Amino acid sequence: MSFVIRSSACYLPQGKVSAEELDQRLSLEPGTCRRRYGVDYRHYASPSETALFMGAEAARAALDRAELQWADIDLLVCASGTPHQALPYNAAGILAELQIAEPLATMDVNASCLSFLAALEFSHCAIASGRYRRVMIVSSEVAKIGVQDVKPETATLFADGAAAFVLEASKNSAGLLTSLFQTYPEGYSLCQIRAGGSGLHPTRNPMEAVAEGSYFEMHGKALYKMVSKLAPDFIRHGLGKAQLTLSDIAHIVPHQASHAGLAHLVHRLGLDNDKVVNLFATMGNQVAASLPIALDHLLRNKRVARGEQVMLFGSAAGLSLGLGVLSL
Amino acid sequence: MSFVIRSSACYLPQGKVSAEELDQRLSLEPGTCRRRYGVDYRHYASPSETALFMGAEAARAALDRAELQWADIDLLVCASGTPHQALPYNAAGILAELQIAEPLATMDVNASCLSFLAALEFSHCAIASGRYRRVMIVSSEVAKIGVQDVKPETATLFADGAAAFVLEASKNSAGLLTSLFQTYPEGYSLCQIRAGGSGLHPTRNPMEAVAEGSYFEMHGKALYKMVSKLAPDFIRHGLGKAQLTLSDIAHIVPHQASHAGLAHLVHRLGLDNDKVVNLFATMGNQVAASLPIALDHLLRNKRVARGEQVMLFGSAAGLSLGLGVLSL
Repeated sequence: MSFVIRSSACYLPQGKVSAEELDQRLSLEPGTCRRRYGVDYRHYASPSETALFMGAEAARAALDRAELQWADIDLLVCASGTPHQALPYNAAGILAELQIAEPLATMDVNASCLSFLAALEFSHCAIASGRYRRVMIVSSEVAKIGVQDVKPETATLFADGAAAFVLEASKNSAGLLTSLFQTYPEGYSLCQIRAGGSGLHPTRNPMEAVAEGSYFEMHGKALYKMVSKLAPDFIRHGLGKAQLTLSDIAHIVPHQASHAGLAHLVHRLGLDNDKVVNLFATMGNQVAASLPIALDHLLRNKRVARGEQVMLFGSAAGLSLGLGVLSL
Repeated sequence: MSFVIRSSACYLPQGKVSAEELDQRLSLEPGTCRRRYGVDYRHYASPSETALFMGAEAARAALDRAELQWADIDLLVCASGTPHQALPYNAAGILAELQIAEPLATMDVNASCLSFLAALEFSHCAIASGRYRRVMIVSSEVAKIGVQDVKPETATLFADGAAAFVLEASKNSAGLLTSLFQTYPEGYSLCQIRAGGSGLHPTRNPMEAVAEGSYFEMHGKALYKMVSKLAPDFIRHGLGKAQLTLSDIAHIVPHQASHAGLAHLVHRLGLDNDKVVNLFATMGNQVAASLPIALDHLLRNKRVARGEQVMLFGSAAGLSLGLGVLSL
């Protein structure tokens, strides 16, 4: 026994900034963001579109599409890579935003950009064990707020958004057929936001240092190099756990890490471009919301058939790699 | 199939502040902290005893006690209520601190003070589903850094520490026999740290506001009142799911929420004090590290027998209640 996807939904911020506006904002030659950084436009959240607000909007839409009530949901898992605040966890905040009358079981699962995949793994186990029947996963990220408009590589990369999925127990489903997660500690400092917790706290540090540490710090080239080196063997190993190869996979949903990263993945693995969901031009890297937004896009806009295998794959701050094969 | 506890270990900060020193520090009459707030002493982490450092120390000790190697661990779950930093997640940071040569699967589970119990639930499902054989859970909290020495109720409450557990698949074990989690959104703002994430970020807020929001804000009386009202029915319902009553429970490990809260729980439920692990005088409230430190204390210092039922129960910022029955 595992799960089937009963419904999915997204919330995208109403504000949209075009590649041309970004060129201006970043003092780049006209056409640079589009040509070099693969940007069409980016959705940026307004101050009222908090991570909790967007998560709640996506959650309500997914519940409506599933034609269910909140009482039908056994567990709400929030799977975001960045917090709305240090305490309590995101799922409690989304529940408060939803203003539901009845209490609900909630928890967060966090594996930075792979949080949604980690939550799918959790849900697979939770449903397979017979303990839960319906799980809702919500990923919601206000990522751009933590990016300074200094380096164009990073400033054009991140965007905001949320997605929600309702999973339901089903006797004849394989759910997440197989999975593989690996964290490579030598890559820990390649992507981080150092403040926000007990490590770089105002009690023991000047506020200037805390402010400085509140932004993404990325070593883009080193990240790209490390992921490129590790990905092919990792994917082979992950698929091999279920006696699968890439030829068994009907659709590939990669984390939308970067323009170059996605192109490299397709090239290096010799993938068929039509099999790969690539929303980078319009969605950018939405941290943990990228994978579910891309999966929602696949399920709602492309031709998919029951029984097909979907490979979800991505890299994440940690540095972590993750892979899951979803059986539709 | 579920898990047995193969080993457990704690790390406590070397620095210890006595109740008398706390009286002085908080300008209270001598004897107040001991008498009114139930303090014997508090462990406070030094700057080098970060949450990652303490978590890694506890993890190494638990692995040694289990007589295992890192290659024997399938998944490292970090279950802390507060982050070391906003990104990446705590488990990746602990792995980096451990300086292990080989990669490992890692993720965080967060349900504020109930994170360890949520991670036990995850581990139960992960092992019961056959996907993982050995899971290590680590909870590590530098909590005192987020508490200002203003209100003595809060200033005497929190302390720091870490614990790690190694769980192992076992055919004849019930593991976490039953569990119940509920989040009551009307209590969301009763305990929080508002900064640290995208909600109260330096990009859109003055640094003074971010600094102010980096500390615990607790409405202690309202919290106490809400938990007192909800707990008895919640516990009855949680135990009832497995056809159990309090008379079936050999040991009770409560979250060490507060001096008054623990006394009230014992009184209200008519519990036998000998059955209840109460370390509040020496450990205080260590957020998510409280439950595993108390469980480790029970397993290593008290007479326990195979087949006995241990009830873990607690309240958490959210506001959430959680209960699990561990079958030894």
